Amino acid sequence: MHSEQQLLDRLRRRIVIPEASGVVLGIGDDCAIVRPPGADEDLLFTTDMLIENVHFLRETHAPADIGHKALARGLSDIAAMGGSPRFCLLSLALPEWAGDAWVDSFYCGLLDLASRTGTALAGGDLARSERLTCDITVCGAVPHGEALLRSGAKPGDEIYVSGLLGESMLGFETRRGKPWKKHLRPEPRIGLGRYARERLHASAAMDLSDGLSLDLHRLCLASGVSAHLEAVPAHSRMVKPRHYLHGGEDYELLLTVPPTTPVPDEIGGVPFTCLGRIEEGAPGEVLMFGLPLRALGYDHFRNL
Amino acid sequence: MHSEQQLLDRLRRRIVIPEASGVVLGIGDDCAIVRPPGADEDLLFTTDMLIENVHFLRETHAPADIGHKALARGLSDIAAMGGSPRFCLLSLALPEWAGDAWVDSFYCGLLDLASRTGTALAGGDLARSERLTCDITVCGAVPHGEALLRSGAKPGDEIYVSGLLGESMLGFETRRGKPWKKHLRPEPRIGLGRYARERLHASAAMDLSDGLSLDLHRLCLASGVSAHLEAVPAHSRMVKPRHYLHGGEDYELLLTVPPTTPVPDEIGGVPFTCLGRIEEGAPGEVLMFGLPLRALGYDHFRNL
Repeated sequence: MHSEQQLLDRLRRRIVIPEASGVVLGIGDDCAIVRPPGADEDLLFTTDMLIENVHFLRETHAPADIGHKALARGLSDIAAMGGSPRFCLLSLALPEWAGDAWVDSFYCGLLDLASRTGTALAGGDLARSERLTCDITVCGAVPHGEALLRSGAKPGDEIYVSGLLGESMLGFETRRGKPWKKHLRPEPRIGLGRYARERLHASAAMDLSDGLSLDLHRLCLASGVSAHLEAVPAHSRMVKPRHYLHGGEDYELLLTVPPTTPVPDEIGGVPFTCLGRIEEGAPGEVLMFGLPLRALGYDHFRNL
Repeated sequence: MHSEQQLLDRLRRRIVIPEASGVVLGIGDDCAIVRPPGADEDLLFTTDMLIENVHFLRETHAPADIGHKALARGLSDIAAMGGSPRFCLLSLALPEWAGDAWVDSFYCGLLDLASRTGTALAGGDLARSERLTCDITVCGAVPHGEALLRSGAKPGDEIYVSGLLGESMLGFETRRGKPWKKHLRPEPRIGLGRYARERLHASAAMDLSDGLSLDLHRLCLASGVSAHLEAVPAHSRMVKPRHYLHGGEDYELLLTVPPTTPVPDEIGGVPFTCLGRIEEGAPGEVLMFGLPLRALGYDHFRNL
């Protein structure tokens, strides 16, 4: 069977984008970009599912955490393009075990993050199902033509990541302490994404949802370049290489920045680490200390 | 437990809509309405789930039909507001039984309808799950402030429905002939919706997704009026009152029109039937030949 990438490639060839649709960038980046006629800004759209027994377990994930995470995943895609959140639409399919108290607590988690980030819950759909499923569409905005893309990395650019990597995967394994909290309540890097666009003039960006090795491979593939890593990402004490290289769901930002741009060590308490450089080479290739780094991050469809 | 309406009412009280979001109408109508700063038109957004064993069965529904219906449901909401489709985003969660052939055929059904209606597939999300689940967000556009709402019906307005009602439910029961085909492949009334807005100057509109009795009750509730029906909707021979009064998934349009507006008997082969009049009265009340018509249409959450 196919990988997610193969499925997307096959699909992309069959899609027609009418000009009147306003769509200026379709499938393949963190968000689609839409330019409504006359609008002052470009709109960004992303959609993310969160499914019981796939993305979370009923036994270990509190409803408020699930509500928070459903929205945080979409906001992270908006952040990765340097956008500001505008509104979201939520589809929620509820099994019978999810009663009033569960649903209220889910919306509390979601609406707390929504109000903190200025995201209006504008609409949605409700249904019954056997497994709890939410799907969220988030809309953000950026100045015309200024969205950060995966495809803009150029040879010579420096590669940066925000935050400490690997904690989310460690937390998922240990279910303890700060890493587990970070797994349950990822903080979308909206301010950092805007800073990367406005001040660092990042040439490319994406969010780290499926692990550094796979996501950096995707960024290099989209940009037609290769990456040479010469440092390990910042990480906390218990975190192992398999966590910080391949662990998913960190929702930190991966950036490439022109070499002339000064980048601070941290912004608002979140560290920025320079991992290496973009070079000409086989598109999608990632080398770490000169050795090929296999893209072992999370692909829903790989092992089928 | 709650009805869908109660859940939505509780939710609406807790939602904050920041002005910068551009959201001018939130939860409660067929679509949310967004006015991006500077944009020439208002944007409409709707989201709809289609879930295995809830909305369709793997055994009886071909993948191309499921793809068609996933998009048709969203387009029907755009039609109900008098809008023109622009783009859509699709989230698709696939169980292991859905292989390449199934997925390709699903996208064929969806992309055929998308290209026929000028709807760009702009993005989406893919995941694994135990039950096939799709969720589609559709965006449409209308001139500023001209979207047809559920809340605009006024005493004296005439009540119209398009098409033949009840066929979808009959088809679901019999799995035969034209009704079954109509159940599998509903045709969104995009042209009719635009006609209702531009030429009939409809005062209110919605699509018939959950059955006339429930949907008309909702329209009357939103408008603070009551409905007096004095005719039965057009229907074909085998269709019984329980089908045309309470059957869901017809995806025809329900309109109210000022009494001075001439309404043709049919448009492009689709009949328009006048069912009666809007009157002052208990908000949400629907009388048929003077008798209360109970809202027996489909509510996901009622019988829990």
